[in-house]
Amino acid sequence: RAPGPPLAGPSVFAETTRLAEALGAVNLGQGFPDTGPAPLLLAALGQVQSGPVHQYSPPQGLASLREAVSRLLAPALGYEPDPASEVTIMAGATEALHAAARVLLRPGDRVVVLEPAYDLYASLVEQAGAEVVGVPLRPGPAGWRLDRDALKQAFEQPVALVVINTPHNPTGTVLTEDELELVAQLVVASDTTALTDEVYDQLAYDRPHRSLAAWPGMRERTVTVGAASKTFSATGWRIGWAVAPAALTAALRASHQVTTFAAPTPLQAAVALALESPELPHYFAQLRQTFRQRRDQLSAALNHAGLPVWPAEGSYFVLADTQSLARSAPESAERLLREVGVAGIPLSAFFLPGATAPNVVRLAFCKSPEVIDEAARRLRRLG
Amino acid sequence: RAPGPPLAGPSVFAETTRLAEALGAVNLGQGFPDTGPAPLLLAALGQVQSGPVHQYSPPQGLASLREAVSRLLAPALGYEPDPASEVTIMAGATEALHAAARVLLRPGDRVVVLEPAYDLYASLVEQAGAEVVGVPLRPGPAGWRLDRDALKQAFEQPVALVVINTPHNPTGTVLTEDELELVAQLVVASDTTALTDEVYDQLAYDRPHRSLAAWPGMRERTVTVGAASKTFSATGWRIGWAVAPAALTAALRASHQVTTFAAPTPLQAAVALALESPELPHYFAQLRQTFRQRRDQLSAALNHAGLPVWPAEGSYFVLADTQSLARSAPESAERLLREVGVAGIPLSAFFLPGATAPNVVRLAFCKSPEVIDEAARRLRRLG
Ligand SMILES: CSCCC(=O)C(=O)O
Ligand SMILES: CSCCC(=O)C(=O)O
Repeated sequence: RAPGPPLAGPSVFAETTRLAEALGAVNLGQGFPDTGPAPLLLAALGQVQSGPVHQYSPPQGLASLREAVSRLLAPALGYEPDPASEVTIMAGATEALHAAARVLLRPGDRVVVLEPAYDLYASLVEQAGAEVVGVPLRPGPAGWRLDRDALKQAFEQPVALVVINTPHNPTGTVLTEDELELVAQLVVASDTTALTDEVYDQLAYDRPHRSLAAWPGMRERTVTVGAASKTFSATGWRIGWAVAPAALTAALRASHQVTTFAAPTPLQAAVALALESPELPHYFAQLRQTFRQRRDQLSAALNHAGLPVWPAEGSYFVLADTQSLARSAPESAERLLREVGVAGIPLSAFFLPGATAPNVVRLAFCKSPEVIDEAARRLRRLG
Repeated sequence: RAPGPPLAGPSVFAETTRLAEALGAVNLGQGFPDTGPAPLLLAALGQVQSGPVHQYSPPQGLASLREAVSRLLAPALGYEPDPASEVTIMAGATEALHAAARVLLRPGDRVVVLEPAYDLYASLVEQAGAEVVGVPLRPGPAGWRLDRDALKQAFEQPVALVVINTPHNPTGTVLTEDELELVAQLVVASDTTALTDEVYDQLAYDRPHRSLAAWPGMRERTVTVGAASKTFSATGWRIGWAVAPAALTAALRASHQVTTFAAPTPLQAAVALALESPELPHYFAQLRQTFRQRRDQLSAALNHAGLPVWPAEGSYFVLADTQSLARSAPESAERLLREVGVAGIPLSAFFLPGATAPNVVRLAFCKSPEVIDEAARRLRRLG
């Protein structure tokens, strides 16, 4: 029997949550709000559930949700995707990324991935028998920024797919117009395809979020992935979407149909209703303001504790330099967890096996102020 | 570029629903109740949703749901699966079947599948580069029964996996103890693995449902798939499960983690609560009684209209002999849809391409009595 595709190990995020709970640590590991969901979303669920929302939806997703997603994304995309042929509702952003990898990758393909990166990308590339070509985001006073020369160099050989993520997990980087422009130019010039994970699109605090597919020539060659989870502080809802040109959408839908068939109808209906709410712009403004404050609160605490942070422009996360704690990222995270009682994720979890990861730990600030205060109190033990 | 795996065409079930709605036909095509969900389930959702059920669950599923599923299945299985190591919650039975195919199949494998069969099985086998070996259920006075000789013959060459489905879609057959015994014997004797789709386990009307994994030696070599959808008349909920021995469960979980990460927490919590309800046995008895009546109502209408049906022992479906209508199953279904105004699924949709399907149409009886009455009225036009 031929060996199967490589299997992913247990999720570092789920494992950290389990360990934090077992040890009574403040859980700044896995990225989920400890409040939430958005009252808007909960109200929408209350409203739809007495209606006919409990049987199969069409595999591509409820029309109302595809239309709402199209309107939601239009400002960042610069165009309104056609809900009939360019939008598919998935079982979370995870399934959208999974479908894109399955449809777009063949054994031997070279896939450019920013490094550090959310661990799923490398798992999906490996399972397709393709190869990850890491292009670094490098730390500096302006945060972790794209290494433009490394990106250009990666394109000197054929590239089957570029995987982008903005706002970026784990660095909090929101790619600049110049950075996105360079990606778009290289993708168009080499006639290849981009997969862009924009699940934190509503969580850009300083610099506005722009979609990669907004650049000329990119609409026809980009899969844009998003989700309700972060947008509505409901990471357990698993409602995501993939926006792609019609031919690619047909292939994504074919994959989706044999993977999960359709996303849960009651949750789709609730997300659609929440997205249609007249309160939505106000809700988003509030959400950003709240998380901006939490970011500043946690960043100050870390700086104060001698674990300096880089500026985080978006997402749920801030990176702390933990060189003063131990000799490597895993050891630093271990000390934070066991001696300080604060759970984070070592940056090594976001690097390819074998790569040398800097001694940095990711900490999530999507938590209530009291919880961040408790983390701050515990971090003071270090001083 | 090497061609990718073959892609499934649009779902015949979703297409039939779309067409039935467009034409104003009575939709006895796709298998979903037109009532539902179970009041028990809706009440459970109402109860859990104000609690902490909106963020990520562990990828393997909420412990409460894994425990409830283990207790639910114990009578049919003859053992109580270990929730920690043998039960995984999936995004519907579809994802459970998808994960099993991905983990168990390699290119070139021979996979025994009952024929007719739910179309997903062949799609999953083909996507793995494996080969479907059809073993017929043959129509007779006792319904559609396993061709025992054909099954034995299929095992004369190496078999990588047997896919069973009981209660069976589309025939309504509930496999007998003798039939399951033969399957188990062949699987154990050839040291291979079984995948059994038992999503209609609570919907056996005449003959009790037994799980294939109940047979000696089968617990260690069987993936048993089930779901809340049919159990609670909520096909849009997409909460399913896979029960398998520990080593296989670890592989299924690894696949699940990179496919959907986790199933929706609020729906998992509601299903767990509903399964813990003291009303559950009463609810199941009622459900079976109701659907038994609907089956009899629709069967009588079809017999009366000159479209004789085979006895259906379980599931949502009855098969009607449509030889009097047209020259092939697709033509008969087309006539029923366009001239009579009743949508069904031609049995050819459940056969491998190239196989000669009998002139039979599947009709769903999981509908309200008024809807079945309206179908009966329309069918009388044929007489
Ligand atoms: C799907 S679990 C990981 C969630 C997340 O976004 C993170 O913590 O990086
Ligand atoms: C997932 S759509 C098909 C549903 C079903 O069980 C059927 O109609 O056969």
